[in-house]
Amino acid sequence: MDLLRDLEAASLRRIDGTVWVLDQTLLPHQVVWEPIHTVEAMAGAIERLAIRGAPAIGLGACLILASRAAAGADLPELSRDLERLRRTRPTAVNLGRYLDRLSSLLRGSGAQAALITEVDRIFDEDVALCAALVRHGLPLVPAGAGILTHCNTGGLATAGIGTALGVILAAHAAGRGIQVWVDETRPLLQGGRLTTWELDRAGVPYHLICDSMAASVMARGEVDLVLVGADRIAMNGDFANKIGTYGVAVCAAHHRIPFYVVAPCTTLDPQTPEGAGIVIEQRPPDEVRGALAPEAAPVFNPAFDVTPASLVTGWILDRGVATPAEVGAGVLATWASLSA
Amino acid sequence: MDLLRDLEAASLRRIDGTVWVLDQTLLPHQVVWEPIHTVEAMAGAIERLAIRGAPAIGLGACLILASRAAAGADLPELSRDLERLRRTRPTAVNLGRYLDRLSSLLRGSGAQAALITEVDRIFDEDVALCAALVRHGLPLVPAGAGILTHCNTGGLATAGIGTALGVILAAHAAGRGIQVWVDETRPLLQGGRLTTWELDRAGVPYHLICDSMAASVMARGEVDLVLVGADRIAMNGDFANKIGTYGVAVCAAHHRIPFYVVAPCTTLDPQTPEGAGIVIEQRPPDEVRGALAPEAAPVFNPAFDVTPASLVTGWILDRGVATPAEVGAGVLATWASLSA
Repeated sequence: MDLLRDLEAASLRRIDGTVWVLDQTLLPHQVVWEPIHTVEAMAGAIERLAIRGAPAIGLGACLILASRAAAGADLPELSRDLERLRRTRPTAVNLGRYLDRLSSLLRGSGAQAALITEVDRIFDEDVALCAALVRHGLPLVPAGAGILTHCNTGGLATAGIGTALGVILAAHAAGRGIQVWVDETRPLLQGGRLTTWELDRAGVPYHLICDSMAASVMARGEVDLVLVGADRIAMNGDFANKIGTYGVAVCAAHHRIPFYVVAPCTTLDPQTPEGAGIVIEQRPPDEVRGALAPEAAPVFNPAFDVTPASLVTGWILDRGVATPAEVGAGVLATWASLSA
Repeated sequence: MDLLRDLEAASLRRIDGTVWVLDQTLLPHQVVWEPIHTVEAMAGAIERLAIRGAPAIGLGACLILASRAAAGADLPELSRDLERLRRTRPTAVNLGRYLDRLSSLLRGSGAQAALITEVDRIFDEDVALCAALVRHGLPLVPAGAGILTHCNTGGLATAGIGTALGVILAAHAAGRGIQVWVDETRPLLQGGRLTTWELDRAGVPYHLICDSMAASVMARGEVDLVLVGADRIAMNGDFANKIGTYGVAVCAAHHRIPFYVVAPCTTLDPQTPEGAGIVIEQRPPDEVRGALAPEAAPVFNPAFDVTPASLVTGWILDRGVATPAEVGAGVLATWASLSA
C-alpha cells in the first residue's frame, strides 16, 4: 500500500491507501466523505453524481483502479474494471482519455506499478492544468466585472482550483472586485448547491438566480462576461457542457457579452471533429419531475447541450486563450496532440 | 345573496354566494378548493399564489368585492377593501384595470348593486375574451406543430379556456396533432405543476423540460412556434410576463422560430408607453433557494421580465392578431381604448 501516496483535492482524497469521495449530492447542507473500496462503489458514486465534474469523474475512476492495482488485481481484472468505469457516463471526454492512458499500460509485468504511477501523474497534471488555465484566464476579467457562470466548475469538479470557477476564485483573490451571477442549473442544481458553497467559503460576492433569469440579468447590464466549463470540446471549437450552457451562449451573443469556455486541454477530443458528433447522455425523468410535477409526466432530460463555436469569444485552455480565428485555423487539434 | 349568481371557472367558483379558490400551490397532487370569506383571505391567497395568472388574480379580487357589496359593506369600506386588493401584486395589469372599473362605481345609492353587476360582466367578458383570442390564434398553429410554452396560461389562469395554453388546447381539440414542450418555469414551477396538469387532463402530448433546455430543443428543430401569455403589454408592444419569457424570446429569435404573445386586450396598459416603465415585482429569496441552496445565499428573484416588441412575431389578442408593423403604427393604443 505504500505505493499509494496521499492525495487531496476538494472532492477526492486518498489517505493511507483509502479513496474517499465527498458526496456532492449532500452539499451544501452536509459535508459527508464516503470511503470507496470497490470499483462498483466508485461506478455507483459517478452514476448517481456523488462525484461529478468532468475532471473529477475521470480522477475518481483512476484512483479506484490504482487501489485495485495496489491490491494485486491481475490484468484481465483491471481491464474489466476499467471498462466498467468507462460505461458510467458517456459525455465527458476526460474519463475516456484517462482510461485510455491506463489501458495502454495493461501489459507485461510491472503493469500494476506503472498504472499506479500514471494515476499519480494524471492527478498532479490536473492540478497544474487548472493553475495554468486560471493564469491565462485572469487577464480577461476586468476590474469590477459582473461574471455569469453555469453549473459547477470549481475545486469540487477537479483536482485543482477549478476551471471557469477557478478563474472566478482567482479574480476575487486578486482583488478584482467581481460580482458573480450563479445560474442554479436545473435539474440537479450544481450551481445552487455547489458553486454557491464554494463562493461562500471563499467570500466571493454573488447572487443566485434561476437559469431563466440569466437573460434578464444580461439585459439589465449586470453581466460583463460569461465563464463556463466544458465536458468535451470538438476540434472545430463546438463544445458540450451542462444543459443550459447553450441557452446562456445564445443570450450572451444577443447582448454582445463575451462568452468564454474554460477547460484543460484534456477536454479536447481529437476523435470529434464537430459538436454534432458528441453523444448526449439522457438522464432519468424523475430528476426533472422532482416531487412537484405529475408522477407520469413525459420528460426530456438531456444532461448536456452543445454550444457551437460561433457563439464563443475565446477558449481559455491551459496552453493559452484560443481566439475564434485560431480555432478556425485548427489550433485545437494541435493543442490536443501536444496534450495526448 | 341572490344577487350573487353562481359562477364557475377552472380555478374560481361562486356557489350559493360563497367564493371558492382552487389552491394552485397544491396542484397537481392535491385538488383542494378553499372557501374565501374575507378580503384579507383573498389578498393572502393572491399574495401566496394560491390564485395566480393575470386574469384570475383580477377576477378573484372582483369576486370577493362583490361578496362584500352583497353583504352590505358601505362605500368607504368597499374603497378600503379595493385598495387592499390592489396592493397584492403590482405587475399584472388586469387587477388594476378591473379595480378601476369597480372603483368608478363607488358613488351614490345603488353602488353595491352596480358593483355586483359589473363583476358579473367582467367575469363573462373574460370567458368571451379567451374564446375570441383562441379563435384568432388557431389559424397560426400548423398541423403537427411543436409548440413551446412557458408558465401557465390555461383555464387555471383565466375564467375561460386560457390564453396561450387556450390556443394550444384548442389546436389539440381541432385535431392538429401538436406536440407541446412545457418549460417547468422556475422558481415556482407553474409549467411543471399546472400546465402539465391541464395538458394531462386534456390528453395533449407534451414533454416537460427544465427552462434551460428550451434552447437545446429549439436547436434540434423540435419547436415550430412559441406561445406565451402576458401580464402587462405596453403600447409599443413590449410586454411583461413570467420570468424566463425574455430568454425564450431571445432563443426563438436566434433560431428564427415564430414567437407569439397571447393575451386579452385587458392586458394592454394605455398608461405604459414602453416596457421600461413596467414595475417588476421582486419575490422572496426562499422561492429560489428552496431546500437545497445555502440558507443565506443572496438571491435575485424577479417574478417577471420584459420582452421587447422587436422579438415578437405577433400579438394574438381578442381583437385579432397584431403584426409588428401594426403595433409600430399604434394599433395597441387603439385596441386598448376600444376595450377600456
